[in-house]
Amino acid sequence: MSYPPLAELETRVKRFQEVLRAQGMDGALLLQGADLVYFCGTTQNAHLYIPARGRALFMIRRSIQRVDPALIPAEVVPLRRLEEIPELLSARGLAMPGVLGMELDVLPVNLYRRYEKIFPGRIVDCSFQIRELRAVKSAYEIGLLKESAAMMDGVFARIPEMLREGMDELELAARLEAAARCAGHMGLIRVRGFNQEFFWGCLLAGPSGGVPSYFDSPLGGPGFTPAFPFGVGRHRLAPGEPVMVDYVGVANGYQVDMTRVFALGYLPEDLLRAHETAVNIQNALVAAARPGVTCGELYDLALEMATGAGLAEHFMGCGEQVRFVGHGIGLELNELPVLARGAKDKLQAGMVLAIEPKFIFPGRGAVGIENTFVVRERELERLTRFPDEVVIV
Amino acid sequence: MSYPPLAELETRVKRFQEVLRAQGMDGALLLQGADLVYFCGTTQNAHLYIPARGRALFMIRRSIQRVDPALIPAEVVPLRRLEEIPELLSARGLAMPGVLGMELDVLPVNLYRRYEKIFPGRIVDCSFQIRELRAVKSAYEIGLLKESAAMMDGVFARIPEMLREGMDELELAARLEAAARCAGHMGLIRVRGFNQEFFWGCLLAGPSGGVPSYFDSPLGGPGFTPAFPFGVGRHRLAPGEPVMVDYVGVANGYQVDMTRVFALGYLPEDLLRAHETAVNIQNALVAAARPGVTCGELYDLALEMATGAGLAEHFMGCGEQVRFVGHGIGLELNELPVLARGAKDKLQAGMVLAIEPKFIFPGRGAVGIENTFVVRERELERLTRFPDEVVIV
Repeated sequence: MSYPPLAELETRVKRFQEVLRAQGMDGALLLQGADLVYFCGTTQNAHLYIPARGRALFMIRRSIQRVDPALIPAEVVPLRRLEEIPELLSARGLAMPGVLGMELDVLPVNLYRRYEKIFPGRIVDCSFQIRELRAVKSAYEIGLLKESAAMMDGVFARIPEMLREGMDELELAARLEAAARCAGHMGLIRVRGFNQEFFWGCLLAGPSGGVPSYFDSPLGGPGFTPAFPFGVGRHRLAPGEPVMVDYVGVANGYQVDMTRVFALGYLPEDLLRAHETAVNIQNALVAAARPGVTCGELYDLALEMATGAGLAEHFMGCGEQVRFVGHGIGLELNELPVLARGAKDKLQAGMVLAIEPKFIFPGRGAVGIENTFVVRERELERLTRFPDEVVIV
Repeated sequence: MSYPPLAELETRVKRFQEVLRAQGMDGALLLQGADLVYFCGTTQNAHLYIPARGRALFMIRRSIQRVDPALIPAEVVPLRRLEEIPELLSARGLAMPGVLGMELDVLPVNLYRRYEKIFPGRIVDCSFQIRELRAVKSAYEIGLLKESAAMMDGVFARIPEMLREGMDELELAARLEAAARCAGHMGLIRVRGFNQEFFWGCLLAGPSGGVPSYFDSPLGGPGFTPAFPFGVGRHRLAPGEPVMVDYVGVANGYQVDMTRVFALGYLPEDLLRAHETAVNIQNALVAAARPGVTCGELYDLALEMATGAGLAEHFMGCGEQVRFVGHGIGLELNELPVLARGAKDKLQAGMVLAIEPKFIFPGRGAVGIENTFVVRERELERLTRFPDEVVIV
């Protein structure tokens, strides 16, 4: 169980303090799991107060036994009630913030109202600033992403031996998930935001790959109960149908997103060509993406290639298309930036992107590719390495 | 894929409308996945507007293709932008609500502020009213709970054949989860509230069972990465150590919670006695629980029996003890009521409870039991049926 180096965590806190000062915030009170992992290396039922200047304070409700203060870039104290927070701050000479940042993109209203009573100053949203900071990964974080990627490469390599005609897609998902778990998949996938119900990914055979869902993704899937109408269904694997496997892998908190297509026996020529187009789009983005390029330009390039191949109406959905071709990823599945239509954000070295050109054919299935990359000075560095071609078994 | 009968969904909406009128709310706008499943039988990226009087309106952003209007107790319409909502209401003769209920226990502040602009009236919290309504289950819902329970009984029955000395607990978890998935486990576990990070349950061998976590539960577990310090770790199974398996099962949206203890070869006498005490506590609560009994009385009875057995300091944790011995369960893991110290709520027929007396021994492990029950007129009806005794393999 490796823990982030203290110097690295201290650098993250220091950078965020610079942002706080630039934004006129006197401090930030952070609660969300992924944000606590980012700044403290771990999460607990806890509050992290980061003042614009001075030493941070990690106030733990449960479980303080699990935290080694020597590893944390903050003073570690127990917290019994929220109302104690001002006292804990003032005992350390920390002034009550006039302007306090909180994660208002995820903090529910009822809870927020308790903090409004505790902090008489103004409470503002600091979630965008945290997400921007987190979008650029350090060498240490990229090392962790490489671990998760290697784990998933190993899992995908085992899929061909798992495929059997007549097996239903849920059974294949169960085997794949068991292999991932044995290889150290941590189970929990973090998706930022309200109502982001998600489970590991989509394993969609044949027509299941053509079924859209509530989830903001080119793939959806039928699910097998109306209570969770997403992802794997119960279609039985048959020759000539794409088995679309889009899974999120996470060994150590850092997630990679990866998609491959498998098939029993053969795949019709037009689906193979569509898959090849997806791989070509990915490769063109890999070559075009570098610091300074805008996300919208990359989306436009992808759409233009899809259109050139006569596949515009199948690109990233069919009927309910999504308007992006990739997204940031790391501690959460939906990080910044998004390679979306019209997005003006510029790539920066160290950003990590899942690029996922896909084509959807209702009634027949989905093909396409997804890999996770790091933005480098000249082009993208690829983290997930399993070959891109359709695997015919 | 079975869908709830329309008459049942209409009854749920009608009951909630009575509550809205009693509370002086003119309508409620619901967004949360579990609440949408409760009222509509399924969830999408959607808004359900329930007026205090009149026909409800299900406004779907994505994916309207997935919804069959004939199954929904509301008119079904597409929604492109939140700002369209007033127009959609007025087109159906629905007045803008002066007092609007929303799920303020889960709705984030940033999103709430958008609704404040759209709805000039007062927005109040209606989450407690929904949770109260959902606490009492119908015969149809109890039928679904029985399906989930039967699935988990089958999965637990296979654990003995999976156990091997030297196997690590993650490997056992992978096998157990694969068996559950093949049996139709839907994957997603819903836990209401902010930051409720959870994955399926805890499989904790020997000392792992003594490790507390951030999660509000007698069991925690070390996890195997600081990024998710909860649940299964990498301890290797050894004779004489309890293998504590506490998993949530869900086949159809309705969750059951279940705990059993397994051991290779033997278990020390004192742990066996503690387990027996837990079973005795459970059985005493089963006999004592009936409509009208308060939740606090049941907690007191459990604590008294634990104390009588000389095990008070190990009851429901050790060091960081939780102050409850059971909780409501259904579409979410943490439903009402909670069998907590001092809780004045009275049981009602049809409530569903997970009762989980457990004893924690730091350094050695955890023993105890958990089953899911329905409150009936004379005593509790048990849904999970696998035998309660420690299973020695």
